[in-house]
Amino acid sequence: MLGLMQHRPLALPHVFHRAEQYFGHKTIVSVEAAGETSMTVAEWAERVRRLATVLDTLDVGADSRVGTFCWNTRRHLELYLAAPCTGRVLHTLNIRLFPEQLVYIVNHAEDEVVFVDRSLLPVLWPLVDKLETVRHFVVIDDGSDAEVPEDPRVHDYEALLAAATPFAGTFVIEDESSAAAMCYTSGTTGNPKGVVYSHRSAVLHSLISLMADGVGLVERDVVLPVVPMFHANAWGLPYGCLLAGSNVVLPGPNMTPQAIAALLEKHRVSVTGGVPTIWMGMLPLLPDHDLSALRAILCGGSAVPKALSEGYREAIGVPLLHAWGMTETSPIATVAVTRSQHDGLSEAERADVRARQGPAVPLVDLRLVDPSTGETQPWDDTATGEIQAAGPWIASEYYRGEGEGVQFTEDGWLRTGDVATIDRYGYVRLVDRTKDLIKSGGEWIGSVELENEIMSHPKVAEAAVIAIPHPKWVERPMACVVVKPGETLTAEEVIAHLEPRVAKWWIPDAVEFIDEVPKTSVGKFSKKTLREKFGGYQTGVPSSAGPA
Amino acid sequence: MLGLMQHRPLALPHVFHRAEQYFGHKTIVSVEAAGETSMTVAEWAERVRRLATVLDTLDVGADSRVGTFCWNTRRHLELYLAAPCTGRVLHTLNIRLFPEQLVYIVNHAEDEVVFVDRSLLPVLWPLVDKLETVRHFVVIDDGSDAEVPEDPRVHDYEALLAAATPFAGTFVIEDESSAAAMCYTSGTTGNPKGVVYSHRSAVLHSLISLMADGVGLVERDVVLPVVPMFHANAWGLPYGCLLAGSNVVLPGPNMTPQAIAALLEKHRVSVTGGVPTIWMGMLPLLPDHDLSALRAILCGGSAVPKALSEGYREAIGVPLLHAWGMTETSPIATVAVTRSQHDGLSEAERADVRARQGPAVPLVDLRLVDPSTGETQPWDDTATGEIQAAGPWIASEYYRGEGEGVQFTEDGWLRTGDVATIDRYGYVRLVDRTKDLIKSGGEWIGSVELENEIMSHPKVAEAAVIAIPHPKWVERPMACVVVKPGETLTAEEVIAHLEPRVAKWWIPDAVEFIDEVPKTSVGKFSKKTLREKFGGYQTGVPSSAGPA
Repeated sequence: MLGLMQHRPLALPHVFHRAEQYFGHKTIVSVEAAGETSMTVAEWAERVRRLATVLDTLDVGADSRVGTFCWNTRRHLELYLAAPCTGRVLHTLNIRLFPEQLVYIVNHAEDEVVFVDRSLLPVLWPLVDKLETVRHFVVIDDGSDAEVPEDPRVHDYEALLAAATPFAGTFVIEDESSAAAMCYTSGTTGNPKGVVYSHRSAVLHSLISLMADGVGLVERDVVLPVVPMFHANAWGLPYGCLLAGSNVVLPGPNMTPQAIAALLEKHRVSVTGGVPTIWMGMLPLLPDHDLSALRAILCGGSAVPKALSEGYREAIGVPLLHAWGMTETSPIATVAVTRSQHDGLSEAERADVRARQGPAVPLVDLRLVDPSTGETQPWDDTATGEIQAAGPWIASEYYRGEGEGVQFTEDGWLRTGDVATIDRYGYVRLVDRTKDLIKSGGEWIGSVELENEIMSHPKVAEAAVIAIPHPKWVERPMACVVVKPGETLTAEEVIAHLEPRVAKWWIPDAVEFIDEVPKTSVGKFSKKTLREKFGGYQTGVPSSAGPA
Repeated sequence: MLGLMQHRPLALPHVFHRAEQYFGHKTIVSVEAAGETSMTVAEWAERVRRLATVLDTLDVGADSRVGTFCWNTRRHLELYLAAPCTGRVLHTLNIRLFPEQLVYIVNHAEDEVVFVDRSLLPVLWPLVDKLETVRHFVVIDDGSDAEVPEDPRVHDYEALLAAATPFAGTFVIEDESSAAAMCYTSGTTGNPKGVVYSHRSAVLHSLISLMADGVGLVERDVVLPVVPMFHANAWGLPYGCLLAGSNVVLPGPNMTPQAIAALLEKHRVSVTGGVPTIWMGMLPLLPDHDLSALRAILCGGSAVPKALSEGYREAIGVPLLHAWGMTETSPIATVAVTRSQHDGLSEAERADVRARQGPAVPLVDLRLVDPSTGETQPWDDTATGEIQAAGPWIASEYYRGEGEGVQFTEDGWLRTGDVATIDRYGYVRLVDRTKDLIKSGGEWIGSVELENEIMSHPKVAEAAVIAIPHPKWVERPMACVVVKPGETLTAEEVIAHLEPRVAKWWIPDAVEFIDEVPKTSVGKFSKKTLREKFGGYQTGVPSSAGPA
């Protein structure tokens, strides 16, 4: 027996038309090289309708990929809606990719058109002859003085919009399973792989960002996504804002902590989101800014150092709100909210809870699986296992079937590659990446946990822990530590800091000081690079500590 | 091109398993004739698993209808999950229906089993021989001393559960479009019609109750649904609570304002919901209770009298939160939240906003259509029209195809029968029911608006406005007024109260005082009964007021 409810697809046209109809008076602020502009949602929506026509004029195929090579700007947001609402697939290109990766991705996705900020032309244009499927480059003039090539493939965004007739009707996507957007993951091994979001997944994920027990976007919010719009759709914040009716502030190319702090103050931003690096940089600036409107500072991309979050709580009363996920999870899978069971805890214990990844949001299912045995692990906060994820906005496969059998289980769950414990209330605590786990004398050592403890030292800026070979224990941990500018630190001090904090046999056999932790193109620690660098490392003194 | 996201159905098993896994420590309080019980969600979930087996033991067909004839209790909540999670269809029967309607509905839905509270057996059992398809009656012993018949069809709920082995696995519903629950609407004309909710509609509607810009259920909430669980699934509150992890308080048969107020205080309830009648009755009790935990008092079923809402705001700082919808809309279509555009308004103006029906929640689309011309009306707060609704939890048809072409438009929207204006921000303001509109001298008069104004008189308990025939103006309004106990009021006073508040030609030609406004079985004003009573009414003095 079937339910007798309307067959209304969960699709992005609803998000667009709702924003246009209910929130036309709200504002979108955009900072570009030429300065700051402010526009109402109604004005913005009219431009989306023009852009829809432009895509037809450029003869972009019915479900072709529309590449964007842009900063976080209002015009990027126009593309966020115009492409999927007309059935095309928004393909956000990571502007920080290595050239060969970028070429690979554009060709693999078969982008027909790429919209590019003028300030980013010098990065993209040298590759133009290698981009096999791109027929049009539409330059968004952001006030940069980068040279615009004289080439028949090159168009001016504003000229196209000015010449276009706004699409007059209601956008319709009949099949909610159809592709809305795609984003490539740049894993540390192999070629980048394409994650293809559906209209259904985009809408459901947007709804989740409106949940009170989470990010809880509301109409009164002013939202500034620092996280780039080419990273898993800026964590879904742009679509979430349009659905909730929040004002939006898009910071453009100047992502320095100084610039972001100034925007947060000026526009009385209430919700922002970005990776820990930006919040680290902004921490010393807090006393100079009135950030009293801020109610949520979303932090993701990597684990949140507890000391950093506490720094924010002490300075402005708002700790960081950690969310966990990845491109393959749209990306929000968990949000580290505190709940009533934490009410009796001390402030320090609550800080520990906030430093976890938190419980799964509604509609997401998680399970812990032992990477060696394949057995499901209990949620007792002790047993570790790889987190596997299922849900309507979790990838089922990569574009063109890549990664099958490796990244996805036989019963269709995503292998996240993150190793964690989960407590009885469902709170995830990451301990490592499956590929970064250190197995010493038959026991696992969590490199991420060790890093977090080292980074809680007040003189440490960053730390990465890797495995080094050991004749007796097979592997032993080694800490690569970045000292804060102007500070000095010895290996002995690092060890002394760790001793009361971790099991004796977790204490690294070696501590090396480095200038910075190498990063991947999306800003994550590249332990692969460190392992290459220290591959032949031998500790001077054989460790006396082994698994108990 | 398809998105590559997992095909995870939106289905109630997710709500059940999430509650069991994340919120097992939370509590469900239930008040029954035998007194109050408290149980953890884990204990409750184990009983749901037993109940799932019981349905198999009773040989209830794979997608058969499972009738419930129950108060708001924990065991009713067990049925809320066990039936749909095993593929059956929960069919909540309105315990206040007239016997012939009840018989019609049970037979029309072909209920195979009916679960009935012992205290309600005296209502149901006399009809037993007319219920053609029911093979089993399962009596839930709520401590009542009602006689339990000696009959092979009669079983004891607790005995069945005690004998059952709990279902051990994960509930699976493959097709999210399959039926989860059904509920009959008791319109004032014709036979009741069956609305069939799908798993998809139930899950999406539950998500909406978690939105921060709405009811915003969170884990910390303690929720008491006064609205019966046989009214459109108690507005979705039970499923919403399980998804959010809120504690639940179920008040059972004693729905007096005194009993509800005592429960709200005792359990520090934060969110409650019910029809205006209950809140009217509770208003004088507010000073005697500590209701400081209350943050939202959801009010629906009919328009919220502004004076009532203001009474709550003045007494406890929390105005009523009006939501609008109907059985066919699952039922929440709009929630009258205030937004940033209302920030500059005076308290009185904000009270006017709260007395509206508010904007549509995400995923619901509304339009205004002139009932005479079929033309879509602008959202200018002046033009009136019937509200038509579309969305994934809005009915597409009634069970067995009834009402086709009448209640649903050709393009698949629901005709709500409510006449309203909508302002530029999407805020609905009901003015009437299509069938209650009064057309006087070619102009519409909104009977609901008139009623609201009359009910704002401090001595008026209730008022209903109907059309009476008039030789010149065709129809003129007549007010049927119920005076508060112990008060006296004259027709002249009512007219004097209205004169500064409505257009001159809206002033009723007659004011009649009645003991109470007749109600339908779901507690709505039955104007049909009033029209029958006053059908031959002639005003003594021809009205001097006509349309301007």
